[in-house]
Amino acid sequence: LTAGWDDAKLRLMAMERIRHVTIIGVGLLGGSLGLAIKRRCGKVHVAGVGRRRSSLKQALDIGAIDSAHLDARQAVAESDLVVLATPVGGFEGYLRIIAPLLKRGAIVTDVGSTKSQVVKIAGRILGAAGPFVASHPLAGSDKKGPQHARADLFQGATCILTPTGQTPVLMLRRIERFWKTLGMRTVNMPPHLHDRVMARVSHLPHAAAVILMLLPGEGDLALSATGLRDMTRLASGDAEVWRDVLLTNRREMLSAIDRFDELLMRLRDLIDVGDGPGIHRLLQRAKNRREGTIARLDQ
Amino acid sequence: LTAGWDDAKLRLMAMERIRHVTIIGVGLLGGSLGLAIKRRCGKVHVAGVGRRRSSLKQALDIGAIDSAHLDARQAVAESDLVVLATPVGGFEGYLRIIAPLLKRGAIVTDVGSTKSQVVKIAGRILGAAGPFVASHPLAGSDKKGPQHARADLFQGATCILTPTGQTPVLMLRRIERFWKTLGMRTVNMPPHLHDRVMARVSHLPHAAAVILMLLPGEGDLALSATGLRDMTRLASGDAEVWRDVLLTNRREMLSAIDRFDELLMRLRDLIDVGDGPGIHRLLQRAKNRREGTIARLDQ
Repeated sequence: LTAGWDDAKLRLMAMERIRHVTIIGVGLLGGSLGLAIKRRCGKVHVAGVGRRRSSLKQALDIGAIDSAHLDARQAVAESDLVVLATPVGGFEGYLRIIAPLLKRGAIVTDVGSTKSQVVKIAGRILGAAGPFVASHPLAGSDKKGPQHARADLFQGATCILTPTGQTPVLMLRRIERFWKTLGMRTVNMPPHLHDRVMARVSHLPHAAAVILMLLPGEGDLALSATGLRDMTRLASGDAEVWRDVLLTNRREMLSAIDRFDELLMRLRDLIDVGDGPGIHRLLQRAKNRREGTIARLDQ
Repeated sequence: LTAGWDDAKLRLMAMERIRHVTIIGVGLLGGSLGLAIKRRCGKVHVAGVGRRRSSLKQALDIGAIDSAHLDARQAVAESDLVVLATPVGGFEGYLRIIAPLLKRGAIVTDVGSTKSQVVKIAGRILGAAGPFVASHPLAGSDKKGPQHARADLFQGATCILTPTGQTPVLMLRRIERFWKTLGMRTVNMPPHLHDRVMARVSHLPHAAAVILMLLPGEGDLALSATGLRDMTRLASGDAEVWRDVLLTNRREMLSAIDRFDELLMRLRDLIDVGDGPGIHRLLQRAKNRREGTIARLDQ
């Protein structure tokens, strides 16, 4: 019964109203987040922090933010929630700037695609049991900038949270509730596991798209069809964002690349010796796995 | 002026009516071809040849063919045009069967994705200056079977023809006209060049999709998003068709795999040493190239 009471109390406290949010980085993700908060979270002031006046103005114009700031210090002191939405490489600098200014009870989260290094850095700056709860909403676009922001970007998608053993459970619950309010499902997993899975289902595929785009001669592309178009769409993503993803998921990327290479060399050998049944088995295995899983997402 | 006359005469002769077509292989491509011919070519008898009664019946039911044959010999003798639409590995057997039965003036073509080996085999069986003009309509689907056939599959797409130096120009013109009647643009190139370009823009991407599908653990796929879904769509393609493509484009596939591997190892090194500017340059180069070319095909 004590457990039940604790749980109810936790739920109650997790519901405490968020009245002031600072979003650092008002690009596509930050802008969409502002729009979603304005639509879903009731009366909340959303402060936007950016490096460029033009992006801040666009974010204001579309109603994604209520106030615009070139200096994070101006916005953070009043915030119940601060969300880092710059490329991952910018997190450390901003965490150092905001750390001394955070009000009591404020929570910091992010929307970055890698987690181990972010969690380590945030722990060092804000304290291991500090107010940082790492998030990775699995939503995005190859488009860039607040002009492509969409209030429904997060709707129906999954948000992965990567608490550590020292993350206060109350903060975790509040961040879970926050993403759920925006229409997301939440899943919790350790940072290193997140990074391993993402290397395999997202970061390595991104790298493959980049290489597939560089491999043909430019003239060859006139004879490409929808297959290559779909396979290279990720290569239109922002180079700065993805540079930081690859840099901050180094170990798991190297391991995923080695695994890809191993499979590619196995296929190479089968083609080299003309092993028809071996090639057929490999292709059929991939087809069966896809049709048992993600093929149901095909449009 | 002689040239002008020849040209006009060639055009006239190329327009000679096709009244009877045999399609060997009534899957998605063969079925779509039948539907397109029935819609676009006026009064033509389309004979379908298949290995399975069920596919032949479906092709008859949707109106893709007028007569169904388990034995190619029954259909071919009356045909002005024979189209090979089985997996590439089946072409040689059918060419041997039909060779002695073709009527004078009949043309044989195909819809296969590789050309050098096909052209060589057809030359051996039908004669180097014989009635074979190789075609590769750049149209398809990851779906299989005549039930997914579409009359507009070829509409607006490109068809690559790979004549040799000995292909009679009159036959080439007739086959060009045939595909144009179905709404396609035609491009001519030598077989070996076709196979090199296709290895880079189609066959290697297909192999990469297969490997990307096999790399993650099956549980990891629950956390994948639209990026992986789009990148692996090709892996849902028919295993028999693609086995034959990889086997019959051996040399160019090995070369494309080696080039892919070289680029992948270059990226691996950049990640390994943490070379941010180097990674950014690579990503930006791929992005620029995509946006200058195939990004305009994005939906």
